[in-house]
Amino acid sequence: MTNAPGPNAVDRLATLLAEDLAAVDALIHRHMSSPVGVIPNLAAHLIDAGGKRIRPLITLAAARLLGGGGDGPRKLAAAVEFIHSATLLHDDVVDISAMRRGKRSANLIWGNSASVLVGDFLFARSFNLMVETGDIMVLDILARAASVIAEGEVMQLAAANDADTSRARYMEIVAAKTAALFAAAARAGAVAAGRPGQEAIALETFGRELGLAFQLVDDALDYGGLAATMGKNTGDDFKEGKVTLPVVFARDAGDEAERAFWRRVVSGERGEEDFVRALALLRRHNAIALTLDAARAHANAARQALSQLPANAYREALSDLADFVVERAH
Amino acid sequence: MTNAPGPNAVDRLATLLAEDLAAVDALIHRHMSSPVGVIPNLAAHLIDAGGKRIRPLITLAAARLLGGGGDGPRKLAAAVEFIHSATLLHDDVVDISAMRRGKRSANLIWGNSASVLVGDFLFARSFNLMVETGDIMVLDILARAASVIAEGEVMQLAAANDADTSRARYMEIVAAKTAALFAAAARAGAVAAGRPGQEAIALETFGRELGLAFQLVDDALDYGGLAATMGKNTGDDFKEGKVTLPVVFARDAGDEAERAFWRRVVSGERGEEDFVRALALLRRHNAIALTLDAARAHANAARQALSQLPANAYREALSDLADFVVERAH
Repeated sequence: MTNAPGPNAVDRLATLLAEDLAAVDALIHRHMSSPVGVIPNLAAHLIDAGGKRIRPLITLAAARLLGGGGDGPRKLAAAVEFIHSATLLHDDVVDISAMRRGKRSANLIWGNSASVLVGDFLFARSFNLMVETGDIMVLDILARAASVIAEGEVMQLAAANDADTSRARYMEIVAAKTAALFAAAARAGAVAAGRPGQEAIALETFGRELGLAFQLVDDALDYGGLAATMGKNTGDDFKEGKVTLPVVFARDAGDEAERAFWRRVVSGERGEEDFVRALALLRRHNAIALTLDAARAHANAARQALSQLPANAYREALSDLADFVVERAH
Repeated sequence: MTNAPGPNAVDRLATLLAEDLAAVDALIHRHMSSPVGVIPNLAAHLIDAGGKRIRPLITLAAARLLGGGGDGPRKLAAAVEFIHSATLLHDDVVDISAMRRGKRSANLIWGNSASVLVGDFLFARSFNLMVETGDIMVLDILARAASVIAEGEVMQLAAANDADTSRARYMEIVAAKTAALFAAAARAGAVAAGRPGQEAIALETFGRELGLAFQLVDDALDYGGLAATMGKNTGDDFKEGKVTLPVVFARDAGDEAERAFWRRVVSGERGEEDFVRALALLRRHNAIALTLDAARAHANAARQALSQLPANAYREALSDLADFVVERAH
């Protein structure tokens, strides 16, 4: 176990895995190429926009932690990033997003149709990469994750504008749409390192718990983090009528008038004034802190899962990552 | 080689493969199940709407032709149908379709977002099915086909409303968006039968040529077939400003005024009167007959590819299918 997470755990992980990561980026660019110009252009717009590559870093670190390296984990890491990218492109169509990674989103520039089809292309290419490893076990892990992610996205769509979404239901959605890929990314790294047994299960648990923490912190940040104030990156979930964990906490602790407020803004009309009131209610009920407590518990479980694995620089870096995921909201 | 195709070659193929096909349908229904109710509902709306299962039948027949049978080809056949279904769901979003297989299209009932996400789910499940076969070679074939299909769809999107689309360009789109899956379906059947060499290549050629014929006949039928008259199933391509082979023939044979007409209706506004004029121009230049001649040439090439394979009931049925694909437009 380590402490002193610091704000740069992702950067330090990227430095530790610099050679692997450069190879992964080369694989990504090679496999997103196509004579059909829209494809590399649209894909590069998203993939080169400065995503943090957290998921592929987890795959690479999981493999290295167990003594694995070389082409297999790199191809899987690239495949994981492609699955993630395809999901983002389709998410932006579903959510009618206008911004992604600080840039205009691809659907706004190239249209929804191109985003759907290029997402399909990247998804297919992720399987081409997995096939190149020749490892049916990792294909199984990532293909299962892909269908669970799609299930999670449909669950989220069905729950949209449903003000009564329970905490359990919400966590089920998060487990599917976000944590499943983190879990598969970590497990695939272990399997690619030739360690499909207990160590793969431990790393899968690490990934799942990290993914849960990651999403809950994102939910908190979408309401401005602990300060719960408006900022340029806040309010997307509110605008879309999504019930996330902060809303669950505030709603369940609120009185009848407050619950009526949440019902109205989640399922019906909502304006800027409503967002200001929502922030006030989140503060009143300590909902952001409670959400971050839940995230912290998952991050701790993630670190705990690492304890049975070999102690080395990769394990330390993953442990730091679990801390960092929560710290970034403070 | 066989003659006397008759109108029921698909039905006869389905009868010949009745046991396999029933098993494939069971696999399809098992793998499209999900606790997330929208998924099986939307998927069943499409998959149970009476599609002819031509692609899975090709996989099954290819395997049986070479002495293969059992679980492997059935799982692949189900996977092929899932890839096709996912493509249809996304196509309908891209084309803003209102009808599919004689019913309201899924995007109209459940919305575009659900169609995108359930398409993703079916696509992921197709890989789950392939993984179950444990055969990395068929995964390679179908994963490659999936990315080629997506490329073809993006190519088609980029060519939409481009009145200058050449015949060569159009055939490139058809080869990718339609023929690649027919080719992969046939080849995967051969590989699943344990015959990955020359026989698989012959069946791949059969599939590709059949797919090209199939699409060109569809293009002709979208203008009413040889009669080139309006009907309840005609005019979709025209409404979407798609340049298909009949339009290529009429445009290239037309005078300057006619080319100006095609430019206007493909890239700009078009009404019911314009469709009537388009049909007249197609008749004047014999464009439907020329398209069906091209389809017939591909169907002949498909039958020709079968000649080096063992002569049995499955080969005969596939040969009849090639004839039927063209005959249905007469």
